[in-house]
Amino acid sequence: MHMRNSKVKISLPDNSGSIEVGSGKFLVVAGPCSIDTRANFLESSRWIKAQGGHALRGAVFKMRTDPKRFQGLGRDGYPILKEIRETLNLPVFTEVVDTRHVEELHPFIDVFQVGARNMYNYELLKELGRQRKPVLLKRAFSATLDEWAGAAEYVLSGGNDNIILCERGTRGFDTHTRNVLDLSSVILMKRRTGLPVLVDPSHGTGRSDLVLPMSLAAAAAGADGLLVEVHADPSKALSDQDQAINLEQFGVLTKKLNQVLSALEKNL
Amino acid sequence: MHMRNSKVKISLPDNSGSIEVGSGKFLVVAGPCSIDTRANFLESSRWIKAQGGHALRGAVFKMRTDPKRFQGLGRDGYPILKEIRETLNLPVFTEVVDTRHVEELHPFIDVFQVGARNMYNYELLKELGRQRKPVLLKRAFSATLDEWAGAAEYVLSGGNDNIILCERGTRGFDTHTRNVLDLSSVILMKRRTGLPVLVDPSHGTGRSDLVLPMSLAAAAAGADGLLVEVHADPSKALSDQDQAINLEQFGVLTKKLNQVLSALEKNL
Amino acid sequence: MHMRNSKVKISLPDNSGSIEVGSGKFLVVAGPCSIDTRANFLESSRWIKAQGGHALRGAVFKMRTDPKRFQGLGRDGYPILKEIRETLNLPVFTEVVDTRHVEELHPFIDVFQVGARNMYNYELLKELGRQRKPVLLKRAFSATLDEWAGAAEYVLSGGNDNIILCERGTRGFDTHTRNVLDLSSVILMKRRTGLPVLVDPSHGTGRSDLVLPMSLAAAAAGADGLLVEVHADPSKALSDQDQAINLEQFGVLTKKLNQVLSALEKNL
Amino acid sequence: MHMRNSKVKISLPDNSGSIEVGSGKFLVVAGPCSIDTRANFLESSRWIKAQGGHALRGAVFKMRTDPKRFQGLGRDGYPILKEIRETLNLPVFTEVVDTRHVEELHPFIDVFQVGARNMYNYELLKELGRQRKPVLLKRAFSATLDEWAGAAEYVLSGGNDNIILCERGTRGFDTHTRNVLDLSSVILMKRRTGLPVLVDPSHGTGRSDLVLPMSLAAAAAGADGLLVEVHADPSKALSDQDQAINLEQFGVLTKKLNQVLSALEKNL
Repeated sequence: MHMRNSKVKISLPDNSGSIEVGSGKFLVVAGPCSIDTRANFLESSRWIKAQGGHALRGAVFKMRTDPKRFQGLGRDGYPILKEIRETLNLPVFTEVVDTRHVEELHPFIDVFQVGARNMYNYELLKELGRQRKPVLLKRAFSATLDEWAGAAEYVLSGGNDNIILCERGTRGFDTHTRNVLDLSSVILMKRRTGLPVLVDPSHGTGRSDLVLPMSLAAAAAGADGLLVEVHADPSKALSDQDQAINLEQFGVLTKKLNQVLSALEKNL
Repeated sequence: MHMRNSKVKISLPDNSGSIEVGSGKFLVVAGPCSIDTRANFLESSRWIKAQGGHALRGAVFKMRTDPKRFQGLGRDGYPILKEIRETLNLPVFTEVVDTRHVEELHPFIDVFQVGARNMYNYELLKELGRQRKPVLLKRAFSATLDEWAGAAEYVLSGGNDNIILCERGTRGFDTHTRNVLDLSSVILMKRRTGLPVLVDPSHGTGRSDLVLPMSLAAAAAGADGLLVEVHADPSKALSDQDQAINLEQFGVLTKKLNQVLSALEKNL
Repeated sequence: MHMRNSKVKISLPDNSGSIEVGSGKFLVVAGPCSIDTRANFLESSRWIKAQGGHALRGAVFKMRTDPKRFQGLGRDGYPILKEIRETLNLPVFTEVVDTRHVEELHPFIDVFQVGARNMYNYELLKELGRQRKPVLLKRAFSATLDEWAGAAEYVLSGGNDNIILCERGTRGFDTHTRNVLDLSSVILMKRRTGLPVLVDPSHGTGRSDLVLPMSLAAAAAGADGLLVEVHADPSKALSDQDQAINLEQFGVLTKKLNQVLSALEKNL
Repeated sequence: MHMRNSKVKISLPDNSGSIEVGSGKFLVVAGPCSIDTRANFLESSRWIKAQGGHALRGAVFKMRTDPKRFQGLGRDGYPILKEIRETLNLPVFTEVVDTRHVEELHPFIDVFQVGARNMYNYELLKELGRQRKPVLLKRAFSATLDEWAGAAEYVLSGGNDNIILCERGTRGFDTHTRNVLDLSSVILMKRRTGLPVLVDPSHGTGRSDLVLPMSLAAAAAGADGLLVEVHADPSKALSDQDQAINLEQFGVLTKKLNQVLSALEKNL
């Protein structure tokens, strides 16, 4: 299965143009795991833009192992998404977790993100195939490459080929990292599907101290970009505290990334 | 988290009584992976009943890695489900794959089955928590016990504590079996949640020649029952050919199971 | 590769006869992980014999992840091995960890045990192939069935076909058990190699509370016997405290095992 | 456990100086999996030196899953090792597989390599701790970081702290690669032990087409060097054909590596 050879375009919120993923430009999508307050999300988003980030991430529906923990702002988060993406003119990636949310989320976001837990939720994938906004499809915890490619086919089967893949680590046996980031998959899936592949070093390791080196490694391996958790104050984040980097660390990351990318004749 | 101490009751289709899961009685749920024709499903169901099987399994929505392969009969399967469960007065377990199907499937089935691929589909679990039919919750491919128990909590959070767990094998590194059947999980999850736990030796191994010995092992380990794929002619099944046993093998299975269960003061 | 069709014989210390492994008789090899004192080893060995155990296990060279922890009695343990096996006329299984120990251990033991850590130590396997005492070959932490069968071939290549395999759990991702006991491997390896296969529920789970149910499961799946850790006072064991069962629990185990085995027309 | 803070020195064969591993210089160790003929080994070694490689790898004792396959030249390879390392004045890394070989291999080689299969062979590690040549300690197939660090402690316990670690991929569930190369381990083990860590992208992926991108990723992640399989004609190699790169590909690799390393203020 080779799906396409071209790039995926993400329109800017004001429709003044678009960002191309899968070209020589390396995409940096950054933001909190889940949006907690308007103020925090605005502060980090401004900083992300200032440091050269191209798009924002931020969930309003957050998948948690334990139903008693913070589940995201839900629909209360929609106006925050709308305001900030328009104010900063940065596309927003947001997780979608139910077929019934696709239509209502549509006007507030730019890219539908399918998390690892929903990669096998084929009804959701088919629903996302019926609309035309790009879909970021994360690899499930222990998805084989065949299963991951099959999931992309479910989106494609509805007629939407604006698919971006994202390697986010697979389940491993060592407890020092949350997951094992499998960079070989990036190379193999790009070649196999023709789709751009991003890397999420935050979930991929679960440790903020590994985000910088693994981001550089992802760039060197040939990934098309990063999905990285950035929070104005990680110690106060309502989810995934251990893996978010702070604003200063994000600044260092983009600087170092640019050095490695230049060596490979790419750039941010 | 200890959820409940009692058994889960599954009402018979004619409401003349119910089956208790989690008591000394060992539950055998059998049938094809997915229903292909009315004739095949009726033939195997009659045999299953004659051999002492307590309930039927049969998907109308079938999750496949590849969207181009047989996806189940879909809504065309509803009347078949209805006819056969009423004719034989055997409860039917059927997979549900979308929040939007819960209401429409409700009158046709007795137990909602959540497959491994949807264990992390929390919106579906919450929807199933809002109704009262029992839910069979399979373990995801590489779910930790914490994640599996968390998924059960999502159903419970809606108010439905009629939950039956099902170990169906976890992802492994050896290619001779489709999965690694983890019988320790049965014991640990029974103790931790108080819920009954079934074992699926068909998906758990992916090989019909391992179904008998692993079923006996599951019974000896203390499982509350089996979910087993039986097909009148496995070589013609539209999915999971390699793992379905035929009618004769099912007869041998129930006989041997009874021997092992008697030794443990249980019975079919 | 099908290596042999017959059983493996283990001679009794006084040469008055032998035990056959791989026949209808189910072998129970029990004892401490490592021998700590003569008194403890003697006490548990007497009890093991009284309850119907057929052979003793007890390491004098103990493999530990951390070199600063108790490494076994080493050569000081040889006279203890010798005395107790002769006093009780029970064969002793002992781990061998270096090619240079094979010759010197030979007179003190009955079966050379190769632990999971040494399954790939091909020089050791070749050395054990050059003598004729039976070899118990454990599966390595993440050995595929091909690798495990290949290791057995290394012993066989030296001319010794007195090989007994032992499934002892494979590395998994869940932290509630030390390993994942893979009972399918027992069935597949028996069929593939013709060799008898034992199960080690102690290392296979790492939890004394899972030893009984997983032992019954192993028997029901068709294993040829057990290798189980028993200690007179597990809380004082110098290694593997959490997984050893005490003498009373061993008594219950053999009783329940006999019930399940009878149902399968086997016996202790 | 933090073992040391300094670098590991590898003496040149003619004792005119040494190579430092773990400094700003990135070490490239290259050569065939196992030495097949003197001519092939000489040809690739000359090329490796010409392209800036710092040391040679080449096994004379080769660990194979199947005892009937090529096991290396054994002692017949010693004179080849000796001749070529002296002719080219390049240090040689060679695998040692038995405690009884340590002394006899000593004069012919510069670094003792312990393969993944022998990481838990503690008697071998202790023996290597008793001499002073550097030891390259590969991570076992599914070794946890604790187990890997523990293995290094076994070498250290004998008094030898000239230890270099090597990540070579861990056992995974996807069949498109031979192993999953875990670059996070490189960062964590460097920090934890203070020892230099190399990466083996050849075994780490099992595919020659992934060697270049994963080598660049390893350099970007902060590895101290590479152990890479290079063969004059990979299609004729007697082991590991699929993962060896040819001489031309090695030339491209060193050039690209230099570009990435310069961006990080390091060099070959």
